[in-house]
Amino acid sequence: MDDLATLGTTVTLRWAVPTDLPEVVAMLAADQLGVTREAVDDLEPYRAAFDAIAADPAHLLVVAVDGDRVIGTMQLTFIPGLARRGAWRAQIEAVRVHKDTRGSGVGGQMIGWAIEEARRRGCALVQLTTDKRRTGAHRFYERLGFVASHEGMKLAL
Amino acid sequence: MDDLATLGTTVTLRWAVPTDLPEVVAMLAADQLGVTREAVDDLEPYRAAFDAIAADPAHLLVVAVDGDRVIGTMQLTFIPGLARRGAWRAQIEAVRVHKDTRGSGVGGQMIGWAIEEARRRGCALVQLTTDKRRTGAHRFYERLGFVASHEGMKLAL
Repeated sequence: MDDLATLGTTVTLRWAVPTDLPEVVAMLAADQLGVTREAVDDLEPYRAAFDAIAADPAHLLVVAVDGDRVIGTMQLTFIPGLARRGAWRAQIEAVRVHKDTRGSGVGGQMIGWAIEEARRRGCALVQLTTDKRRTGAHRFYERLGFVASHEGMKLAL
Repeated sequence: MDDLATLGTTVTLRWAVPTDLPEVVAMLAADQLGVTREAVDDLEPYRAAFDAIAADPAHLLVVAVDGDRVIGTMQLTFIPGLARRGAWRAQIEAVRVHKDTRGSGVGGQMIGWAIEEARRRGCALVQLTTDKRRTGAHRFYERLGFVASHEGMKLAL
């Protein structure tokens, strides 16, 4: 499979494949907030979600790999809309970098690639929400040019 | 076309159709923030966006109508994801109620229907972002059960 981008001497970005799932889910579960929300010992619901993501080209699941280790992941969704003269927007979800790799710049490079991909597809906007407790993440995204202009509102069902 | 829901004695909810576009775009443009972002005299970009929304069942464009007048609109997008054990989320965008109809409860009924539809489809979460300047909207969504737990970050391209 072709790489999407080269992020460093040994790190590349590519589409996620089913065999990446254990490592990706482990990263979701290792997260400060994800630890109570994930269940790494049962991958079945994650496989179903992977298939749903793969079934619609509106969704892209990306991993950063260093050799054969998965060190980062993010999901993009491209959303058409009437507002802003029929603008498309790119939405970023579920960004994680492996704890052993934080501070290496991989996260910023992943988001930088997402912004370029959104631009290439003619999106007018890139958007994401980040938990208000993740103050480090806010600074990270602001450095990349994002503005915290909106309230991100959630309702759990 | 069948109605999705009856919101009052004369108000119903249904899928948007192309002939609704002038009224929907007029509502987007009449908005306090939309007035500088929309261009009602050229519907072509809106028609293209409408076709893109209609082309993928992940996206739903809904209107509330009173007789043959369009008095409300919103867009839903259903997003699969790995996080939260492979949870689907429903995202609400571009909610508008005609200025002559505000305070009638139509907005709350539209969002209430969206929440029920998300539940029916097995979503774990309903999410939206709202501009920090729209303080009335924050109270509106909080009354409906939403929690402003996240920063909504945007990057214009």
